[in-house]
Amino acid sequence: MNPVISTNPATSAQRTLEITETSVEEVGLLSAAADAAADQLATRLLTWRSALLRRIADELEVDAEHLIATADDETALGVPRLTGELRRTAFQFRFFADVVDDGAFLDATIDHATDSPMGPLPDLRRLRVPLGAVGVFGSSNFPFAFSVPGGDTASALAAGCAVVVKAHPAHPATSAACFAAMRRAATACGAPEGTIGLVYGLEAGVALVEASPITAVGFTGSVAAGRALWERANARAVPIPFFGELGAANPLVITEHAARDRGAEIGAGLAGSMTLGAGQFCTKPGLLFVPRGRAGDDVVAAMIEALNALGSFTMLSSGIASHFRAGSATIESTSGVTTLVRSDVGDEASATAQLYEVDAAHFASSAGAALRQECFGPVAVVVRYESATQLRDALEHSEPALTFSIFAVDGDENASWLVDVGAVHAGRVIVNGFPTGVGVSWSMQHGGPWPSTTAPAATSVGANAIERWLRPVTYQSVPDDLLPPPLREANPWAIPRRVDSVVTPT
Amino acid sequence: MNPVISTNPATSAQRTLEITETSVEEVGLLSAAADAAADQLATRLLTWRSALLRRIADELEVDAEHLIATADDETALGVPRLTGELRRTAFQFRFFADVVDDGAFLDATIDHATDSPMGPLPDLRRLRVPLGAVGVFGSSNFPFAFSVPGGDTASALAAGCAVVVKAHPAHPATSAACFAAMRRAATACGAPEGTIGLVYGLEAGVALVEASPITAVGFTGSVAAGRALWERANARAVPIPFFGELGAANPLVITEHAARDRGAEIGAGLAGSMTLGAGQFCTKPGLLFVPRGRAGDDVVAAMIEALNALGSFTMLSSGIASHFRAGSATIESTSGVTTLVRSDVGDEASATAQLYEVDAAHFASSAGAALRQECFGPVAVVVRYESATQLRDALEHSEPALTFSIFAVDGDENASWLVDVGAVHAGRVIVNGFPTGVGVSWSMQHGGPWPSTTAPAATSVGANAIERWLRPVTYQSVPDDLLPPPLREANPWAIPRRVDSVVTPT
Repeated sequence: MNPVISTNPATSAQRTLEITETSVEEVGLLSAAADAAADQLATRLLTWRSALLRRIADELEVDAEHLIATADDETALGVPRLTGELRRTAFQFRFFADVVDDGAFLDATIDHATDSPMGPLPDLRRLRVPLGAVGVFGSSNFPFAFSVPGGDTASALAAGCAVVVKAHPAHPATSAACFAAMRRAATACGAPEGTIGLVYGLEAGVALVEASPITAVGFTGSVAAGRALWERANARAVPIPFFGELGAANPLVITEHAARDRGAEIGAGLAGSMTLGAGQFCTKPGLLFVPRGRAGDDVVAAMIEALNALGSFTMLSSGIASHFRAGSATIESTSGVTTLVRSDVGDEASATAQLYEVDAAHFASSAGAALRQECFGPVAVVVRYESATQLRDALEHSEPALTFSIFAVDGDENASWLVDVGAVHAGRVIVNGFPTGVGVSWSMQHGGPWPSTTAPAATSVGANAIERWLRPVTYQSVPDDLLPPPLREANPWAIPRRVDSVVTPT
Repeated sequence: MNPVISTNPATSAQRTLEITETSVEEVGLLSAAADAAADQLATRLLTWRSALLRRIADELEVDAEHLIATADDETALGVPRLTGELRRTAFQFRFFADVVDDGAFLDATIDHATDSPMGPLPDLRRLRVPLGAVGVFGSSNFPFAFSVPGGDTASALAAGCAVVVKAHPAHPATSAACFAAMRRAATACGAPEGTIGLVYGLEAGVALVEASPITAVGFTGSVAAGRALWERANARAVPIPFFGELGAANPLVITEHAARDRGAEIGAGLAGSMTLGAGQFCTKPGLLFVPRGRAGDDVVAAMIEALNALGSFTMLSSGIASHFRAGSATIESTSGVTTLVRSDVGDEASATAQLYEVDAAHFASSAGAALRQECFGPVAVVVRYESATQLRDALEHSEPALTFSIFAVDGDENASWLVDVGAVHAGRVIVNGFPTGVGVSWSMQHGGPWPSTTAPAATSVGANAIERWLRPVTYQSVPDDLLPPPLREANPWAIPRRVDSVVTPT
C-alpha cells in the first residue's frame, strides 16, 4: 500500500510517515476486532467506562506538547488555538465520563405487570444498549476535537461501543500520535484489544462504511464527501445510520435597531468570527443579513476595516485553499454581487479574507442560488435588506443550517419572529453572539436540517451525542437474574429510572 | 381518478365508495395544508394537545359500533378482536395524552452561563420541537391500532405535528369512518384545518413520501413496500426519515428443560399465538426452535393437534391470501423441509394453518435461507436442534427480528445466553410468553434491527414513539421573553427539566 504522507501547509514540506494506507482487508480485520471488543465492552460497568474516558483525557494531556507541535506542523492552526482545542478535547472526554456516571442516557424504564384498559400488561423493561462497532471519520479542521480523539469517538466509547477511526489525510501524524495516547489509556484500563482502531486512506474510508461489522458511522466534513458516504451506508446489504455533520452557509441577521445601537462593534466582531481558524469552521457565519442605510453601512465599514487589517491565512491544506479560491470566484462572478474585500495571494496554501455584498431581492432570486452554499474559508456574503418583509423572504431562500444568529436590541420588534425562523432553519439559534463557539454541555445541539446534516434529529456535540450509538431493547417478563443490571428490581447501578410512569431520581 | 372500492374478503363482495383515489395534486395541497397547520400546532399549549388526543379517543368510542361493523366487513377479523383493537386504539390516544402532559418528551435542558475548563460557556437551552407535517401509512392487519387512528398518528399529533395518512386499500371505508370521527374531535377542539388529512391510492402514497412539505414518514407493512418507499424517501431532494416497521420471522426458542417441564402446554399456546389474527401479526412467532427428542416431540405433537382442530381463516384480502399461498409453497418446497400440518382450501381469500419442520443444521446451511423470511399468515417452521451449540449456530443464521421469545425454566443453563442473543437480535426479548401482544406503555420497544425495521433506534409503539417526530433545537443566550415557554426560567409549563446537569422533577 501507499505510504502515508504528512504535509506542512505553511511550508509545503512533506515527509513520509512510517505508516501505510490501510488495505480493505485490514479494514475488515480491524472492524471484526472492534466487533469482538464491543461484545465485551457492552458488559463492563459504567464506572469502568467512565474511568477509561477520564484516563484517555489524562493521557492526551500527558502528551500535550508533542500533540500540539505535531498538529501545528500539519495544520498551521497555531499553538494557542491548538492548545485550547486539546483542552476542549480532554474536557469532552471528562464530560462524557460524567454523562456515563449519570446513567440517564440508558433511558431505563420499568413498567411492572398490571391491568390496563387494554387488558393485562406483562412486566416490561426497556434499556438502551450499545450498537457494537462503529466507524468515525476525522475532520480536516479540528485535528483533536472532531478527529481521532473527538466527540464522535468519545461519545461512542461512552455508549459502550468500539470505534474504528478513519484519519483525515490533512493530519496523519497527529492522528497517529493521538491514537498512541488513547491506546495507552485503553491498555492501562484493561480495555479489550480492538476497542479503538485507526485506518488511513480514501479506499479504507469507503471500506469502513461498507464493512459488515460496522453498525453506524459518525462523520464531520464536506457536503460532497459526506453525501457520497451516506449513499454507501444506505446501499449496504444492511444499511446503517450515517451521522454526517456537513456544514452550511450559516445565516446571521443584524436588525436595524442593533445596527444603529452598536453597528461598528458588531461589524468588528463579525470579522473576527468569520475568519476564526481561517474561516474553516462549519459554524462560520457565511450569510450576513444587514439593513440598507447608514446604520447597516456602519456594520459593513467596520467589517471592511477589520478584514483589511488581517494578514493572509495558511489554510489547512492546498486542496482546501484551492476549493476556497474556486468557491469565492463563484461568489464574485455571480451577477449582482459587489466585491467589498478581496486581495489575491500568490502562495498555493494561503488565503486572505474576502467579503462580498448582494441585494436581498437578488439573493432571493434564482440568480442568488450560488450564494446559498457553504464556502469553506475566510469569506462571507453581506445580504442587504430594505424591510422586514424583504429580510424574511431572503431568509426563506437560504438553506437550512447548523446555526442561525440574530443581533437585536431589547424589545426589538423583529426579534421574536427571527427566533422562530431560526428554530425552523437551524439546530442552534443564537442571540447577540457569534456561532463559531460550540460549547460541550448537556444543552448543546450541534446539528441541523438537511443539507447541513444527514441526520437532523442527532447532535455531534453535547451529552445527547451518545444517543447516536445506542438502540433500545425491551425485556418482557424476564426474570430478575437474567436482566441487565440497570433493569434489575434493586437498581444495583443506582441510575435514574422511570418506574410505573414516575421518574425516580437516584 | 378511480373510485375507491371496498371489498369484503369473507364474501368477495365489492362496493364502490363515494370516494376517489387522491390525485398527486391533491396530495400536494393536503401536505401544504398540513404544513400550515403544523406551524400553528407547534405553538399550542401541551394541555390543548392532550385534550385533542383525549377527544379523539372519545369520538372513536362514540362511533364504536359503526367502526367495528365497518372494519369487520372489510377485514373479517371478527367483532371480538376488533372490539379489543378499538379499545386499544382509544387507550393509545389517552396514553399519548399522558405522555404529552408529562412533558419529559420535550427533553428540556438548561445550562446557565458558566466558566468551564473550555473557557466561558454562554447560556444554552435545548428543546425538542415538532418536525412539521408528517406522512403515515396505515397497515393492512390492524385497521384501527396501526392505521388511520393508529400509534403513528397518535404519537405524531402528540409531538405537535400535523398528519396526512395514506389509507390502506384493504379497509378504505373503515379509514374514512375513523377519519370522520377524528375530524369531529379536531373541529371540536379548534384544531387548524389541515391537522389531519387522508389520501387513497398507490400513486397518492408515493406522492405523499415525495411531497416537499412532508418531513418524516411512519409506515407499517411489508418489507417490499416499505423498502421501496424508504428508497423514495432517501432519493428526495431533501431526504427525510422513514420509520418503517416491516416485520420479520420472529424466533421463539424452547429449551430442553422447558419442553420437558410443560411441552404440551407450550405447544398448544404456540398454536394459538401463531394463528392469532390468522397469523397476520408482524410479531407472529415464525421460527420455532424445538429440541430433538421426546420432550420436543411433545411440543410438536401438541401444536399439530391444536392446529388441526382449527378451521380455515378468512385472510385480510385475496392478495394477502395469495402471497401466503406462495410463501408457504416456497417453504414446503425447500429441501429438507417436512410438512407437519397442511390442508388446501378452495376459497381464494381463505387459508388454513400450516406447520413445517426442518433440521437446525439444514436451517443454518445456505439451503435454509428461504426459511428465514417472514411469511405473513398462519404458518410457522419448527427448527429441531440437537444441542446448545447447534441451536446457537442456527440462531446466528436467522434474520434480525422484532421479537425474540424464550421458553425456559428457573435456573435453566441456557436462559442467560439466549437473553443476550435475543437483545442483539431483536427489539424485544420475551421470557415464557408469546410475542403477539404489544403493550402500549412507557417501556415498550416495538422495532428491531434491519431488516425488521428501517430505523432500529426508533419504536412505533410506546411512549418513545413520539421521538420520531421531534428534532432538538438549542437556544443560545436567547432572552427569556423570546424563549419557547418550556425553556423560560420560571418553567411556566411546569415540565421536568435538566438544569445545570441536575434533573429537576416538577
